[in-house]
Amino acid sequence: MSKKVGSDIEIARAAKMQPIEKIAEKLGIPEKHLFRYGPSKAKIDLHYVDELRSRPDGKLILVTAITPTPAGEGKTTTTVGLGDGLNRIGKKAVICLREPSIGPCFGMKGGAAGGGYAQVVPMEDINLHFTGDFHAIGMANNLLAALLDNHIYWGNELGIDSRRITWRRVLDMNDRALRSIVASLGGVANGYPREDGFDITVASEVMAIFCLATDLNDLSRRLGNIVVAYTRDRKPVYARDLKAEGPMTVLLKDALMPNLVQTLENNPAFIHGGPFANIAHGCNSVIATTTALKLGEYVVTEAGFGADLGAEKFFDIKCRKTGLKPSAAVIVATIRALKMHGGVAKEDLGKENVGALKKGIVNLARHVENVKRFGIPPVVAVNRFVADTEAEMAALKQACAELGAEAISCTHWSDGGAGTEELARKVVQIAEGGKANFRTLYPDDMPLWDKVRTIAQDLYGAQGIIADKKVRDQFAEYEKAGFGHYPICMAKTQYSFSTDPNLKGAPSNHVVPVREIRLSAGAEFVVVICGEIMTMPGLPKVPSANFIKLNARGEVEGLF
Amino acid sequence: MSKKVGSDIEIARAAKMQPIEKIAEKLGIPEKHLFRYGPSKAKIDLHYVDELRSRPDGKLILVTAITPTPAGEGKTTTTVGLGDGLNRIGKKAVICLREPSIGPCFGMKGGAAGGGYAQVVPMEDINLHFTGDFHAIGMANNLLAALLDNHIYWGNELGIDSRRITWRRVLDMNDRALRSIVASLGGVANGYPREDGFDITVASEVMAIFCLATDLNDLSRRLGNIVVAYTRDRKPVYARDLKAEGPMTVLLKDALMPNLVQTLENNPAFIHGGPFANIAHGCNSVIATTTALKLGEYVVTEAGFGADLGAEKFFDIKCRKTGLKPSAAVIVATIRALKMHGGVAKEDLGKENVGALKKGIVNLARHVENVKRFGIPPVVAVNRFVADTEAEMAALKQACAELGAEAISCTHWSDGGAGTEELARKVVQIAEGGKANFRTLYPDDMPLWDKVRTIAQDLYGAQGIIADKKVRDQFAEYEKAGFGHYPICMAKTQYSFSTDPNLKGAPSNHVVPVREIRLSAGAEFVVVICGEIMTMPGLPKVPSANFIKLNARGEVEGLF
Repeated sequence: MSKKVGSDIEIARAAKMQPIEKIAEKLGIPEKHLFRYGPSKAKIDLHYVDELRSRPDGKLILVTAITPTPAGEGKTTTTVGLGDGLNRIGKKAVICLREPSIGPCFGMKGGAAGGGYAQVVPMEDINLHFTGDFHAIGMANNLLAALLDNHIYWGNELGIDSRRITWRRVLDMNDRALRSIVASLGGVANGYPREDGFDITVASEVMAIFCLATDLNDLSRRLGNIVVAYTRDRKPVYARDLKAEGPMTVLLKDALMPNLVQTLENNPAFIHGGPFANIAHGCNSVIATTTALKLGEYVVTEAGFGADLGAEKFFDIKCRKTGLKPSAAVIVATIRALKMHGGVAKEDLGKENVGALKKGIVNLARHVENVKRFGIPPVVAVNRFVADTEAEMAALKQACAELGAEAISCTHWSDGGAGTEELARKVVQIAEGGKANFRTLYPDDMPLWDKVRTIAQDLYGAQGIIADKKVRDQFAEYEKAGFGHYPICMAKTQYSFSTDPNLKGAPSNHVVPVREIRLSAGAEFVVVICGEIMTMPGLPKVPSANFIKLNARGEVEGLF
Repeated sequence: MSKKVGSDIEIARAAKMQPIEKIAEKLGIPEKHLFRYGPSKAKIDLHYVDELRSRPDGKLILVTAITPTPAGEGKTTTTVGLGDGLNRIGKKAVICLREPSIGPCFGMKGGAAGGGYAQVVPMEDINLHFTGDFHAIGMANNLLAALLDNHIYWGNELGIDSRRITWRRVLDMNDRALRSIVASLGGVANGYPREDGFDITVASEVMAIFCLATDLNDLSRRLGNIVVAYTRDRKPVYARDLKAEGPMTVLLKDALMPNLVQTLENNPAFIHGGPFANIAHGCNSVIATTTALKLGEYVVTEAGFGADLGAEKFFDIKCRKTGLKPSAAVIVATIRALKMHGGVAKEDLGKENVGALKKGIVNLARHVENVKRFGIPPVVAVNRFVADTEAEMAALKQACAELGAEAISCTHWSDGGAGTEELARKVVQIAEGGKANFRTLYPDDMPLWDKVRTIAQDLYGAQGIIADKKVRDQFAEYEKAGFGHYPICMAKTQYSFSTDPNLKGAPSNHVVPVREIRLSAGAEFVVVICGEIMTMPGLPKVPSANFIKLNARGEVEGLF
């Protein structure tokens, strides 16, 4: 860990990438099924994806995390590192990650393709337009919006109440000016003025649908089911009423092919889809995960935010809907973050503090317990920092042993796959031990309100949930309208088990206030919003865009 | 012409495409310089483009047209057909076309990749996302908008007058609801409310810049020069004041590589960039054209609308700025359209009418004369329809001979390159005869007002131009601000030499009213608007989106 590690972009540029055909060959994908985007990116033909369906599945490993600090605890780097580690110990492992959003790259510095020696490449491409998937998703979202306003313009046969339109437009850009607008101004030719707004593309329900669809037919069916508005007498208006699912599917047909790239160690990685982890489920596409499971012995994937949000949605939404059965879960922790949960201030995190660490382990303990509730055996990956001391690591190892989840030191950031070999061996031991017995937290037929209460009580340690009558009525309305069997998609702060981001550790007896619920009828879940959720970020005072340019060698500067 | 011709999409699907490497090989492009997008599309590495600069140029042929009917006279099909015809007679010919816009595909049925047996393929891809260039251009445009509003939000150090912001957002979508909006509503966190609006992506000045830039440095310089707003005391605020040109160039770096595809006859075609032909210059990218000239003996390209707009801008903007010297011009005419110019009603165009045809030839005659003013020898390509009679064709041939421009019957729509062999031979004869002596219509140092008057009088047959004092003052202001040496970009109806779309034939002594002028300081021209210009289309009552879907074989239906 004392080794000098260059910047992410320096390391990425120094990478010796293999032609993408070679990476595909490792998985046995014939070249004719590759749809190449330059020398080091390719999409995989959906016909080939279909042909794979009869094959047996590899083992699925979820990488999740403790309640994070704002810097994140290293889920993506650990996912990449574990994939490389598994390959190093002779397992054919494939990584599945989300695609990063382009908009935020121009706000805060930093890409989203791992870091240090645990990265996926070509990093600039992945962080910029990549293979155009998000542009296609944005187009599909905005075509639906245009068809909706066009319908109203030409006579509004469906009787859409323009005050009850729920479908918003999107851009893959941090642009606060578009959060709330009045559209269709300027006279008769421009339509009927109404309130509207833009979200960032990753917040589109089309993104969530894209990531849950099992094939093009399922995609089309789900797109048709989107509720875009209500009539004056509150009947839902669906995307299919606007005949929108056909052209939306056409716009998405290429995007739905999973994207293959490689790690710095030339191991295969699928990077496909990237829904928000609050108002959506925060996992890469089902198509990429299921395809990877047919091609690899091991598939390592991650889910957004800490395990209370990410793992719960991975299990209760993605696995429930698709029959995926994970074999193990890796909970990423850092000694820094655990000390923070133990009450240490940010500026003191660099100092050894075994007492605070032990106190903060309550946060990890609850995540370990939570993962076990789903029948999945956990292992703790300690993402090591230079300032971590041996005494701290020893204390953490002992505490984890008591929790029944081994803690393993990982140095993938500085050492690549060599730094996760021990973790890889442990993961194989668990997965091949066959101890996993996946179950969802709640059954489909539990009332929506009770599903939310179950999540809050069993996973968050809450006393219960509360909501205004208006919100409670909405639960009842959704059930009456036939959406009661949907799973819940919780939207709350990722910085605490509670809805108060300042409540660190493992708070108990708090109450979870449900502020609002929203229907994602295409994605097939009910979004439960507990707190402020920002679906269109803004740019900071000094955006990273100010420093981004091509240098004299034609390389991108300032993006990472 | 009595041969049964299938629908464009049927023909395109039956095409035997060659791998794009084979097409590149015909031009001598080494495979390592190809950046493939699937098996039949590729971008050409900009390093390789740079390496070509010392090579001699091939001969440049412009395809333009008479004043069109709403259906168009077949410029794109003739461009494709001529390219195929030249290859058939043994010339290494390359085609350069504009990329179609995706938004309009969901409005009116019909793609923009040629038709019949004169098409470029893969047609669906070209009409949908293609290689993502327009998405990149939209992102660059909208990043600049976001940076501008963000600057105001954080204190407005530049003193931007929010009432004098000229930079609009864009989407590649026909969406009338976004033409005129009020943005930044919803309180302090969302900025200062102001009037704003969206254009369709092809109308962005970024698109015009993209198509005029000679390399990445020139692109960056031009992007920095965009005037986005004015201060309260009317000083221009540039994109470079917002440090926007760096990240915008990064967003466009891949897009700027020219796109290579093929015709149905497996001849190379560059399809790159697609600016509006009214508020911009309506030609494919300079990079694609100059690259093609280094690789082929002949380059056939087209310019939007009739010769009064398209050819004039091609000569006075694109050629002036880049030193391109065309060798010949092909003016596409149809007997139907000439009869319309001769006064025949739409429903009677199917009947023989030699008298009306002769009368309508005045329109063609003026275009012939106009092209000659630029020192370019013209030939007339008669795009044949089944209903055309031999008597009509004979009359047209004779009239053209008298005009000093041979009229040649072309049947590329039904016969492909075999239907343009005679045209190809004539084009070669002209080009190799060396009669071309290209000159612009007006010099750089002519006052802006006089430039507009010259175009109106010399090309449109107008008596003169008029404008309100406010507009005339604007001309003077632009000159004072140092933009007087820019060429003019005329924005008027394409359906008449005059500004009245109903004035067919070759009207004279009309007056051209200048309604508004706009500065495109990055594209380096002054847009002169004479009439209503729509920069954000709407969808029709029954949009083609209603019929677009994937069929059971996974093919796109309803798009073409």
